[in-house]
This record gives sequence, C-alpha cells and structure tokens, in this order.
Amino acid sequence: MTQTIENNRVRTKTIQVSEIFGPTIQGEGALIGKPTVFVRTGGCDYRCAWCDSLYAVLPEHKAEWASMDTRQVFAEIQRLSNNTPILVTLSGGNPAIQPLEELIDLGHQHGYTFAIETQGSVAQPWFSSLDYLTLSPKPPSSKQVTRWERLDRSILYATTNKYDREIQICLKIVIFNEEDYAYARSVAERYPALPMYLQAGNHTPPQQAQEIDISGILDRMDWLIQRTIADRWYEATVLPQLHTLLWGNKRGV
Amino acid sequence: MTQTIENNRVRTKTIQVSEIFGPTIQGEGALIGKPTVFVRTGGCDYRCAWCDSLYAVLPEHKAEWASMDTRQVFAEIQRLSNNTPILVTLSGGNPAIQPLEELIDLGHQHGYTFAIETQGSVAQPWFSSLDYLTLSPKPPSSKQVTRWERLDRSILYATTNKYDREIQICLKIVIFNEEDYAYARSVAERYPALPMYLQAGNHTPPQQAQEIDISGILDRMDWLIQRTIADRWYEATVLPQLHTLLWGNKRGV
Ligand code: SF4
Ligand code: SF4
Repeated sequence: MTQTIENNRVRTKTIQVSEIFGPTIQGEGALIGKPTVFVRTGGCDYRCAWCDSLYAVLPEHKAEWASMDTRQVFAEIQRLSNNTPILVTLSGGNPAIQPLEELIDLGHQHGYTFAIETQGSVAQPWFSSLDYLTLSPKPPSSKQVTRWERLDRSILYATTNKYDREIQICLKIVIFNEEDYAYARSVAERYPALPMYLQAGNHTPPQQAQEIDISGILDRMDWLIQRTIADRWYEATVLPQLHTLLWGNKRGV
Repeated sequence: MTQTIENNRVRTKTIQVSEIFGPTIQGEGALIGKPTVFVRTGGCDYRCAWCDSLYAVLPEHKAEWASMDTRQVFAEIQRLSNNTPILVTLSGGNPAIQPLEELIDLGHQHGYTFAIETQGSVAQPWFSSLDYLTLSPKPPSSKQVTRWERLDRSILYATTNKYDREIQICLKIVIFNEEDYAYARSVAERYPALPMYLQAGNHTPPQQAQEIDISGILDRMDWLIQRTIADRWYEATVLPQLHTLLWGNKRGV
C-alpha cells in the first residue's frame, strides 16, 4: 500500500507529520547549537513515562497530524529554509516507523543533510542513507523495555552506508536517576566505539506539568555532571536541552 | 632563561598558573559538555572590555598566580583526574604566551589530550602538538585590534601537526551586538574551512557586575539564534556558556 495510482499520478509514500518547524537550533546531543529544520513525525511504538512530545505519540492526536507525501514534506522544508541547504532533523514520535528514505534521497539531491533521532526499537535499512544517527535507548525510568538486538541492527544498518558520505552515529541517554545512570553505563559498555551523550531529564514535561522547573532541571544537570566525573567517566559528554532552558516547554521553536 | 640549573637538577620551563581546577565539563565551544581539567594560565596581551577572567589577566593579580614547572602542573592534573586520562583545557589569560609544549608532550605520554583556547594574537610552533585548537579572535566590542597575519600563522602552525593524531581547529566568537556579528561573518569568510562557533556574551562578568543576569544572557542568545538564522548562516553553531547558566560567575567549577 506504499505506492498507489491516483488521478493518473504516482503518489510517493505517505508520511505522518506532527509538525515541521524551524529553522531553529538543535537543542541537544551531538549537533547541539546547529541550525536545523525539524520534521516531527506522528506515532510511536513507545509510551515513555516522561515523554515530552505526547502530541506526536498518542493516537488521540492523530487528527492533528498531516498525511504528507515526500514532495510535500520537502517543499515545506525548502520553504522554511529559504531554499538554502540546511540540516534536517527527523524526530518524533519515532521517525523510524515512517517511510523517510525518499525524503532523504530527495533532500540530498538538493544539498540538504539529514539527522534522525530514534530510540532504536525499529531498525530500518535506510538508516544507511543518513548523515547522522542518534540512537536514544530509553532508561528504566521510562518504563519501556530495551530490545537490544534491534539496537544492534540499527547500528549495523547505519554502518553499511550506501553513500560516499560519512555517517556519524552516537548514543544519547536521558537520565533521571541512579538507575538510569547505571543503564547508560551498560549501554556504553555494549557499544564502546560510539560517542555517548548524557542528558538530564525534564521532570516537568508539557501536558504533565503546569510550569517548567528550570532550576530543578539545572540541579539535575549539576548532579549528572558530578556523578559522571566522580565515576571518572571522562569519555561521556553531558549536555542539557538548550531549547528547554531558552524557551521552556514552548513548541515550534 | 628557560632552562636553569638549580640544586643540581634541570628545571623544566616555568608556567604562570592562575588556577588548575576540575574535572568539570567544558561549558562552551566545540567541546561543550566534555569532562575536562582546566589549566588557566596567568597573563594576557589583551585587555578586552568585557573580559570575564581579569584575575588571570591583570599584573596586579600576579601575586595570586603560581610559577610552576611542567612536572608540577602535570602532577596537579593527574591528582585532580585521579590518574585517569582526560581532556586538559589550556585557557587564560592567553595560554599561548606560556611555554606549554613540554606539558602537552608529557601529558600525551600518559594518554591525556589537550585543547587550547586563545585569541590568536600569539602564534606558537607548538600549536602543532595540540589535539584541539580554538581560536577566538575578539570582536569590535572588546576594543582590541585583530592582527590577522598572526591568526593566519596560528592556523598554519596547527595544521603542520607533528603527531600522527588529527588536530581539530575551530573558531569561536563572542558576540554582543550587530557589529560583532558582522565581524564574525568576516572571520568566517576568511577561513571558510573552519567550523565557526558563535557565543552570546555575558554582559555581567565578574568584577564588573554584582549579579549575573541570566535572563538577559538568554535573551541575547535568542537574538543571536534569530540573527544567524535570518541570515541563513546555517553552517554556524550557536551556543551559550553552560557554566554561566549552571553556576553563574562562580570560579573553579
Ligand atoms: S520514544 Fe520518544 S516520542 Fe516515543 S514515547 Fe518515548 S519519549 Fe515519547
Ligand atoms: S583575550 Fe581573553 S583573557 Fe585576555 S583580556 Fe581578552 S577575554 Fe580576557
């Protein structure tokens, strides 16, 4: 059902889109501070306890999502970026459950680059087309279960890059407590070659809190820095969510 | 006068040290979030209007600095890092006016890596020994004059790396206003191959302000992001000073 004939025209694959916005800066992880356009897809196979984008996860928000084909999505990216090549960040929900290969190919033809952020629960052969793959397996506080073999396969797909471009793969783990920290260490042990980004969680996500607790978030970040350093885990990188510090829980910035 | 015989022992070169502290995370630039030990040297050939570390610049603070030889400095780095190799960040003042080559060589022998942050006003052949070189030429608001030929030479020295290790060079410019922004663009035009990091300035540096103005700093950061994006300068990276957000103007963290 991925290709249908309609009005004598071959339609490209349909992508569930929660929002397309930017350019703004990437607020977290390896590409922190880089100008980017976000494509947030709709739908997720996870239900993290502290999800900060439930509007892109829960089926009851489906009416707010748009079904767009590759060309429509790319036209919007071009419009927002003023037709100037930029980094496109594919996030969600879980963007790995969407047919994004065509979009990446089309964007590359126009000089755009692509990063994806996914939990690694769905491995796609087209990860090989990406420029950046951030895998963020979810720690115990999320109440989700990590399927390690799928994480393995995600990395395997990504490293068989079909382009002559270098793909950068990294891990990012959101940490709320000691148990999450131990989980992060075990992930790093499993994949010692991959750069690891640790991120203090936002315990006041939208839809679950009235107001964002910036000083509480900074305190957790401080704890995470001290914890990592006390452990002599000097290979890790500890970062906040910049957009949360700058703009709180506001969407579309 | 760099090698003197004293008590039958060859002394290594003397380094003026304002402070050695850490491990903490690097709060800015390309290595943001990375655990590091800072060696802040004493003395600077500049007098930036908004300098946030005058205690490591002005001769009247000289009594607070320590004259240490390479071995003493490295012993302190090892003590702080618990003898575990870590990134060492050489900052100042202007660390480029100190004899740091021996320290870098000694550290490398023990698995430590070295980053330097300098304005590029003094080019040293030993830049070739570094792992990371951040050049932060100072914009008009600093009231300093950029000596372009010295910046050129700094890059030249760094790119003739004497080790088999890759050196990463980047530019970082602190921006307070429109004129500074234009300066940053001109620097990027001169060195198009180098990654450019833009940083919103702290208009409430220690010694010049009673209290740090976090919301003012975040507003300037927001302005800088919008300015960069409106200009479609998508290759730049815009970052705050994390340590300022986390710990204000506090020293030694
Ligand atoms: S994987 Fe991400 S989008 Fe999905 S529920 Fe968890 S936090 Fe939300
Ligand atoms: S170059 Fe750096 S240390 Fe020297 S005066 Fe300027 S801001 Fe201060």
